Amino acid sequence: MKPKLVQGSRDFGPLQLRQRKYIFNTLRDIFSRFGFQEIETPALEMLSTLQGKYGDEGDQLLFKILNNGDYLNGKEVRKQSSPEALEKILAEKDSAALSPLIASRGLRYDLTVPFARFVVLNRNDIAFPFKRYQIQPVWRGDRPQKGRYREFYQCDVDVIGSDSLLYEAELLQIYDQAFAEFDVKVDIRLNNRKLLEALAQMIGQPELFMPITVAIDKLDKIEWKGVAQELEKLGLDEQQQQQIQAAIQAESLDKLAELFGPDNEVGQKGIAELQEVLAFLEGYSFSNNLVLDFSLARGLSYYTGCIFEVVVDTTAPGQEKVKMGSIGGGGRYDNLTAVFGWEGNSGVGCSFGAARIFDVMEELGRFAQIPQDEVELFFLCMDEDSLKYGFNCLQACRAAGIKADIYPEAAKFKKQMKYANKRGLQKVVIIGDSERTSGQLQLKNMKTGEQSSCSLEELIAQLKA
Amino acid sequence: MKPKLVQGSRDFGPLQLRQRKYIFNTLRDIFSRFGFQEIETPALEMLSTLQGKYGDEGDQLLFKILNNGDYLNGKEVRKQSSPEALEKILAEKDSAALSPLIASRGLRYDLTVPFARFVVLNRNDIAFPFKRYQIQPVWRGDRPQKGRYREFYQCDVDVIGSDSLLYEAELLQIYDQAFAEFDVKVDIRLNNRKLLEALAQMIGQPELFMPITVAIDKLDKIEWKGVAQELEKLGLDEQQQQQIQAAIQAESLDKLAELFGPDNEVGQKGIAELQEVLAFLEGYSFSNNLVLDFSLARGLSYYTGCIFEVVVDTTAPGQEKVKMGSIGGGGRYDNLTAVFGWEGNSGVGCSFGAARIFDVMEELGRFAQIPQDEVELFFLCMDEDSLKYGFNCLQACRAAGIKADIYPEAAKFKKQMKYANKRGLQKVVIIGDSERTSGQLQLKNMKTGEQSSCSLEELIAQLKA
Repeated sequence: MKPKLVQGSRDFGPLQLRQRKYIFNTLRDIFSRFGFQEIETPALEMLSTLQGKYGDEGDQLLFKILNNGDYLNGKEVRKQSSPEALEKILAEKDSAALSPLIASRGLRYDLTVPFARFVVLNRNDIAFPFKRYQIQPVWRGDRPQKGRYREFYQCDVDVIGSDSLLYEAELLQIYDQAFAEFDVKVDIRLNNRKLLEALAQMIGQPELFMPITVAIDKLDKIEWKGVAQELEKLGLDEQQQQQIQAAIQAESLDKLAELFGPDNEVGQKGIAELQEVLAFLEGYSFSNNLVLDFSLARGLSYYTGCIFEVVVDTTAPGQEKVKMGSIGGGGRYDNLTAVFGWEGNSGVGCSFGAARIFDVMEELGRFAQIPQDEVELFFLCMDEDSLKYGFNCLQACRAAGIKADIYPEAAKFKKQMKYANKRGLQKVVIIGDSERTSGQLQLKNMKTGEQSSCSLEELIAQLKA
Repeated sequence: MKPKLVQGSRDFGPLQLRQRKYIFNTLRDIFSRFGFQEIETPALEMLSTLQGKYGDEGDQLLFKILNNGDYLNGKEVRKQSSPEALEKILAEKDSAALSPLIASRGLRYDLTVPFARFVVLNRNDIAFPFKRYQIQPVWRGDRPQKGRYREFYQCDVDVIGSDSLLYEAELLQIYDQAFAEFDVKVDIRLNNRKLLEALAQMIGQPELFMPITVAIDKLDKIEWKGVAQELEKLGLDEQQQQQIQAAIQAESLDKLAELFGPDNEVGQKGIAELQEVLAFLEGYSFSNNLVLDFSLARGLSYYTGCIFEVVVDTTAPGQEKVKMGSIGGGGRYDNLTAVFGWEGNSGVGCSFGAARIFDVMEELGRFAQIPQDEVELFFLCMDEDSLKYGFNCLQACRAAGIKADIYPEAAKFKKQMKYANKRGLQKVVIIGDSERTSGQLQLKNMKTGEQSSCSLEELIAQLKA
């Protein structure tokens, strides 16, 4: 009889929801100031839209919706299978073969594929470049664990239909302004995939691009010594190792250009791209740290140009103890819509790791200004006549735009106070016989215990101020 | 290759989403001014939570999620069935018997059952009376048709844990203030289920409560003559019919009390309840029409006290042509959480029919103030240097809180203008050689064609004003 939550899912009560909305609405404000527009796509997508886009593992984790009605004898199963084939599948209890016959729809797994589908379906109505953002839940059948849920929000901001590097500059500014608003100091790391390709080029082993990058990507965890060992294993000699070390630790783009040499075309192209991004940012002063990080690798099967990543700056005062991976990331991609047959649509985007940002902000006490309950003024009334009187006062407060509430009956004072306390209300007004006749209301601050008396008009003016 | 939407689902592009958010955010503001707090529950619920709550038809329409992994040979199927039973089910292709073995989770079908589940699971942390609202999508496997979707938003506001009639008064005020904000004049109909019971009581046939109510409920469609015929069929004689007609057309509660007589307990109780609600509203002046409607029937298997319904007032100027059923409704219920074993939790709530309200507002042109694109100022730059210059101007606008954007390259003027037109932008700034050197920017109003010239500072001041 006792109901339970689906494993890996959560309810959001009032306070937690308000904290989360503070994050999302702050981002919405910033995105829209930058000319990005919000869209929403449905939770349900055709499995044919979703499958094959997230690798084998992703396909396993898709939530599939059972077809409606008598699905074992329906139109869908007949369309896709013969009676004999179906009987064989059922007799063998072959779940994998049965699924496509009885489930044609699934739940959104990320926001990228639905966005690509949206762009393809609405290509004639959209003005390109198209700047959109999207803040919606996604579902993944992952094993639930601490901080990993089966239903969670993603927050993506992208522009599609232009290869202008001005947009890279805008996304870096968006990261900067968002975390400034959140009062969390971060490193915004910037690299370009082309520079990673150039490393392998530089040492004459372009075919080793991927394994070299994988090794370099571990720099944070195993330091240079560990990376050198991995490169050694790949067959790189000491000189090659040193060349790579010098490049990823180069103190400037000019220095890196020199190390690559003029013939390293992909390297010079990557450097030129980063220089152009930085040129756009010349007049802008960052609140956070913009860090050129030539070892940054991310989404290599997807990103083709600039790559971004955001991590908490643990050298900033008060943030030393924060342990958290990346809380945002993104980059330039060439072919968002190619999976749906529309080639050559370059775009750039980034995402905000909402759940992790939430955890960091909670750890740093950044939600302190968000009250447990939004109600600014709460009325307690001691008798029936006072309740009617209080209800009229309440209406005047609300009409003035004040969030106000009332205990709905003339219950015992203690009971009403207990309720106000449990809701975490800050200011209560107590109305009894004498307040009602004098019009002088009693205001009590629940935190300090302080009591004062004033007229309703004074009270409203005070709260509005 | 070409992707498609799931039947009965929709994308919301930027403009449509902004219109919908205008509705939802207006409601959020009002709800929170009345002390209601927002919660969110997950899309996924256990099927054991959902099933049996919506009648047989509802159970049919639930979207079920296929269990993950090798579901035909997994733990779930073994827990609920023997190998022999499963083989029989598969051999017979018995979809109905197979479903519970391979699907243990489903998609939210409404917001009421998840709310009840939330209350039961969090009963120790919640301060009762608990005032909550919830605005989230629900899913139903209904046959899609015009205006009926398989994925759509519901918007519910409820208070649970009190039988105070003050809350009925608050919900009526919420309806009134919401539709005043939407600039849609409505009738807010009010009745009490007890008065419907009292009708059958009055004519000495309490057992005919349901069929009599069903007949009366048709008054709008078939007029009194039709209703009388239906009552005739139920075996009511002419005098009984006249008694009922007199009661449902009574011009006041006092008159109705007289018709019922003092011994009609349920009738007197219902009248006393309505009188108390109206007493709370004495000092309040409605922007819409509050209509006591003794023929209003709604959710009789669920509601126990007051019943509300909102319909468009087609006598209001400009609204004569609106054809739409109810756009909101609700009432008092006794036992929200009883389905989960917790009895005696009275509550009252109402819902807003978001999709229908959207359609009405669109028909009445109430979204005229919502622009196609939020961007207030758009920069067009004629050469590379102007682009850098324009990007700096853009940053100054955004820093001042203005929603601003820029064409990301120094493309041909025509191309940039075409883009600005397609986005529906209102104001563009054109920057070329002379503007850059003089600092006097050219502002063009895309609607009127009007052009003027001013400095960046003047422009920002003008837009902020």
